[in-house]
Amino acid sequence: MNKISPLMPSDLEVLMHDLGLRARAAGQALSQLSAATRSAGLMAMANQLTVEADQILAMNAKDMQAARQKGISPAFLDRLELTPARIYAMADGIRAIAKMADPVGRELKRWTVPSGLDIARVSTPLGVIGMIYESRPNVTADAGALCIRSGNAVILRGGSESRHSAAAIANVLRQALETSGLPVDAIQSVPTTDRAAVGYMLSGLNGSLDVVIPRGGRSLVERVQAEARIPVIGHLEGLVHIYTDGSLDLALSTEIILNSKLRRPGICGALETLLVDRACAASQLPALVEALSAAGCSLRGDDASRALCPDIEAATEQDWRTEYLAPILSIRLVDGLDGALGHIAQYGSGHTECILTANETSAERFFAEVDAGILLHNTSTQFADGGEFGMGAEIGISTGRIHTRGPVGAEQLTLYKYIVRGQGQVRPD
Amino acid sequence: MNKISPLMPSDLEVLMHDLGLRARAAGQALSQLSAATRSAGLMAMANQLTVEADQILAMNAKDMQAARQKGISPAFLDRLELTPARIYAMADGIRAIAKMADPVGRELKRWTVPSGLDIARVSTPLGVIGMIYESRPNVTADAGALCIRSGNAVILRGGSESRHSAAAIANVLRQALETSGLPVDAIQSVPTTDRAAVGYMLSGLNGSLDVVIPRGGRSLVERVQAEARIPVIGHLEGLVHIYTDGSLDLALSTEIILNSKLRRPGICGALETLLVDRACAASQLPALVEALSAAGCSLRGDDASRALCPDIEAATEQDWRTEYLAPILSIRLVDGLDGALGHIAQYGSGHTECILTANETSAERFFAEVDAGILLHNTSTQFADGGEFGMGAEIGISTGRIHTRGPVGAEQLTLYKYIVRGQGQVRPD
Repeated sequence: MNKISPLMPSDLEVLMHDLGLRARAAGQALSQLSAATRSAGLMAMANQLTVEADQILAMNAKDMQAARQKGISPAFLDRLELTPARIYAMADGIRAIAKMADPVGRELKRWTVPSGLDIARVSTPLGVIGMIYESRPNVTADAGALCIRSGNAVILRGGSESRHSAAAIANVLRQALETSGLPVDAIQSVPTTDRAAVGYMLSGLNGSLDVVIPRGGRSLVERVQAEARIPVIGHLEGLVHIYTDGSLDLALSTEIILNSKLRRPGICGALETLLVDRACAASQLPALVEALSAAGCSLRGDDASRALCPDIEAATEQDWRTEYLAPILSIRLVDGLDGALGHIAQYGSGHTECILTANETSAERFFAEVDAGILLHNTSTQFADGGEFGMGAEIGISTGRIHTRGPVGAEQLTLYKYIVRGQGQVRPD
Repeated sequence: MNKISPLMPSDLEVLMHDLGLRARAAGQALSQLSAATRSAGLMAMANQLTVEADQILAMNAKDMQAARQKGISPAFLDRLELTPARIYAMADGIRAIAKMADPVGRELKRWTVPSGLDIARVSTPLGVIGMIYESRPNVTADAGALCIRSGNAVILRGGSESRHSAAAIANVLRQALETSGLPVDAIQSVPTTDRAAVGYMLSGLNGSLDVVIPRGGRSLVERVQAEARIPVIGHLEGLVHIYTDGSLDLALSTEIILNSKLRRPGICGALETLLVDRACAASQLPALVEALSAAGCSLRGDDASRALCPDIEAATEQDWRTEYLAPILSIRLVDGLDGALGHIAQYGSGHTECILTANETSAERFFAEVDAGILLHNTSTQFADGGEFGMGAEIGISTGRIHTRGPVGAEQLTLYKYIVRGQGQVRPD
């Protein structure tokens, strides 16, 4: 599984379909194991990661060296780099998942109908998940662990820049599955960086793949959504807004806005556009702008905000559509809550939206009318995260319109079946 | 909306995108209305159907006449035909949906996390649903009502043979929306039979359509799944099996098998393949076959079953893959529960599967190991129906692997958003 070599197209097809068949069989076996057995497997995965940390670091060093030679950006290198602390954090994340309530085989609902049938809705794994992601080695561990917790087999296809790291992590996880008696092919990593492999995954591997989850930049996710012949659990961008009406204490508003934008500007829950009620702008915007500038944030605003704070650069239409993922913030004055709702309806990406207000009625209206996975009141948008929601870990934040929205943890990787217990009933005409 | 005339391609594109924009606006308005307002709208829809029954019957007569002239099959004509009783039944179905618990705006879960954030998961409509179906006029009423109940706007695209009936029903439902103050464009019917209209729907109408639901034969559903660029809630065939191990009373088993196959052979929950434990076949199969034959069912079996009952015709491999939707049954002897599980894993369509046994351990193993939306023990497969499950009505039975599985009612046309109430929290580094 670990060898990386050029493949002929026909070899690649055979290889990918073989991965699919192995995954299907492993997923079926995994789905029949008890929660305790899968928990034990997860603990073994966490332990094996720490035992094999040196080997993983050595493989990561290869990826880092190649990436540096290609002149890749510091932000990218930071996401790619593993350290002992990061490996221990990955292991701790898996231990947290091992201790979570198991989401499989739960009776979600049970009722009796007039015919006397006893009907139960029981949670089930989805089946085989294809995970296509960019070069973040930790996704390999998070996705592998969440899939084992939810009883799914997974085929992992990470970015080519992290190929040695991802293969090393996947191999370590597979060793742990083997030693703990779980089906080793429940976690497989595509052993080639050939882009055609993604095409086979998007076609569903001859029926062996049930769903594909893209995680990465917009172009990756859009390619997957355009080409997939199987269901996609989509993770598009987070074009996150905060609307402030000025009624919340200014020092607190400022602290929340700075944290939302600057704590980690590169995560999908980071603030991108600040909407300020025109009525409070004159009294509050200058102080907000000063605090943001002092913290190193570049600002781009509409004419009305620039009239109050001339140091703000001019924003263009494109700014309202841009997920900066960087210490840059766009600012626009709006006519109250209606103006904010209109802007968010037009430009929001359905990810995370926030209102800062002391007015509960405004907050409830924001909750009711804004169409997004996560709606926040008086708190930082950086809380848009499965871990912070108590899910242990997340595969990402879904911006889709079916199956699941918001943070995707183990529970969100399940569906259900109906169990109907009869006593000989036949259906009348 | 009601006029049907040939369109130029560019006109069609404008028309379809206009439908999409109207649906999006209507859906947003609908999602903000109270459950009581939507219930009142549903009652008005039911009443208007009975008030306008004569007009609907007149339009249906046009469709029936055209279909007869085309020499269409009696089974098809039966599905197409409306009668006063069928219109009253449609109205009663909508009244039942009007009285159902509303699935929108429900707090599904609420919890507090260590940071102090108060997190609620609240149910929401999906948005705008595209319904593509064949020539069953009642689907127009059922789908329209389920979408209003779940706060979704719907764009309906029925089969061309039912176009006058479907347009008449949709217009009546729209009149009721208008008189009861609901957004009239929450229900729209595509006013052309041009097949290119389906293509626009599958591309998502420039972002106005969130999900498409195909309901009909295999070729329709497969086309939708292959071409859709937006999520699909799939309804593929029901290749339904019963496995009998002979331990249930033979008279009761026979009654359940006959009802499963013959009550209405054309529905997706109808039995298609009977699997009989080889150990009980000699003592039970002849009586079963005699009862089925006497009831007018054609039988096709494997060599082992034909050795016991020579009147059974020979089955081919294709029979195990065929959803007859007709009074034809395939029969195969299997080696106990393991043999049945193997056959179902290979040929099942994930719709509905049933075991007849007095052995609870076998039933529980069947429930755990068979991968299908609906699993039944000791009851007729014809109960695979949203109405029988207590859902009021159904849009169909999903055989998909994400979002929802089994009968799709109003609750299954919702998703959720997360409402996070903070007290000024910022996220630590």
